[in-house]
Amino acid sequence: MEIRDAEKQELLAVAHELADVARVETLKYFRLPSLGVANKDANSFDPVTEADRASERAMRDILAKRRPNDGILGEEYGAQEGSSGLTWVLDPIDGTRAYISGTASWGVLIGLDTGNGPVMGIVDQPFTGERFLGGFGKAEWTRGDETRQLKTRQCANLDQAILFTTFPEIGTKAEGAAFRAVSKQCKLTRYGLDCYAYALIGLGMVDLVIEAGLLAYDIQGPMAVVEAAGGIVTNWQGGSAHQGGQILAAGDARLHAQALEILNNSV
Amino acid sequence: MEIRDAEKQELLAVAHELADVARVETLKYFRLPSLGVANKDANSFDPVTEADRASERAMRDILAKRRPNDGILGEEYGAQEGSSGLTWVLDPIDGTRAYISGTASWGVLIGLDTGNGPVMGIVDQPFTGERFLGGFGKAEWTRGDETRQLKTRQCANLDQAILFTTFPEIGTKAEGAAFRAVSKQCKLTRYGLDCYAYALIGLGMVDLVIEAGLLAYDIQGPMAVVEAAGGIVTNWQGGSAHQGGQILAAGDARLHAQALEILNNSV
Repeated sequence: MEIRDAEKQELLAVAHELADVARVETLKYFRLPSLGVANKDANSFDPVTEADRASERAMRDILAKRRPNDGILGEEYGAQEGSSGLTWVLDPIDGTRAYISGTASWGVLIGLDTGNGPVMGIVDQPFTGERFLGGFGKAEWTRGDETRQLKTRQCANLDQAILFTTFPEIGTKAEGAAFRAVSKQCKLTRYGLDCYAYALIGLGMVDLVIEAGLLAYDIQGPMAVVEAAGGIVTNWQGGSAHQGGQILAAGDARLHAQALEILNNSV
Repeated sequence: MEIRDAEKQELLAVAHELADVARVETLKYFRLPSLGVANKDANSFDPVTEADRASERAMRDILAKRRPNDGILGEEYGAQEGSSGLTWVLDPIDGTRAYISGTASWGVLIGLDTGNGPVMGIVDQPFTGERFLGGFGKAEWTRGDETRQLKTRQCANLDQAILFTTFPEIGTKAEGAAFRAVSKQCKLTRYGLDCYAYALIGLGMVDLVIEAGLLAYDIQGPMAVVEAAGGIVTNWQGGSAHQGGQILAAGDARLHAQALEILNNSV
């Protein structure tokens, strides 16, 4: 779909407004000793905090006023149909496990989806005050008054690559084996960053992120940032990643091709 | 050894001065695209950056002026004997892999050792601007103008505990198996934080850190912080941890005892 320049400016302004309110709500509860954690799934540890919910509600309130015809897909409060063809894909706290542990690697994720994937998105880290934005001609990192252009770095071969993922287990057994087949060829593998790892691809500090079992709201914000910075995000078959699932994100197309071949041969 | 109150104040001031200069030097190079990384060990990836060296040199320059009779043990420039009975144990960048990846979980570590372990120490995270200090009656987190008392939280049982370690491999095969024996009883296990995980025990956000293969300069700063905040740091046999090796750090003594029993039975 075609989006006029004036509307792009409005959408960028709304995206910043969403990230601003989410930053306030998530920081209210961050590192509070009394932080309540409920289990969504009785069989596994899946913390959903009050901060998660407050952050998404604050974003939905803004969208109701500013963009009433757009759809919304949020982690906590589900899908709401729109008529404009645009959907805001929201993860109020990506990395709730990181959040409840007090680390600075969780993030607020905002993606603007046309149905074929995100055309603009934000990864915001409220505690460090960093915002990574990509789309509508922008690829930028901001922190207070500082601004920096996002640009992925060149990395021609896996043996020079830094690879990140969140959990060493990586989904199913077969998915874990596929991940390790790539990992053992990389220079360095690190764990535990959630969405922040994608942001570091955009900054040109990290080369690859491989994950499995993601949902649309986990990937659309990061995907917009990585793509705007010059990187590639697909699923493990090289197809579209915006619905989630198995994710392969790379800063350099050559690296993406190498990792894709290994993942494809492994699962 | 006995340290007079006036000297304690001087030592605290020197420790802050060390952390201040290390913060400047490490941030100069952080996230620079041109960051040079050399391999100390040809067989494995062990990045030593110019930032590491500049940070330690700056701290040694201060000690030469302010505390010429104290010893120094630093990661990059080795041991220097002193005559005072006190040794500054310095890790100019703990978590160089995190540092070269652009994450905010590395730290500058400063420990003041009497020979029997650290009586005061600092974990400083320059990018977030956080400083964790413990010893000489202090246990505090500071960030800009903000101050907070460090205090570990209560956690009576492993099934309620959040456990951190840096690498999922954890040293040798036997050490890895011992770690996993504890991990599978915990509520949540996370990876990749280096020294920052100990700092989060001090903040009361994390309950356990288990690592192997540490050196004295990796643990003395974090150990002082955790102990000052009410936690316990030993090796996997319950003995002294200040020389490094296998490390078990806990915020609650009951949890420490439970983890110790498992680790002892496993290796």
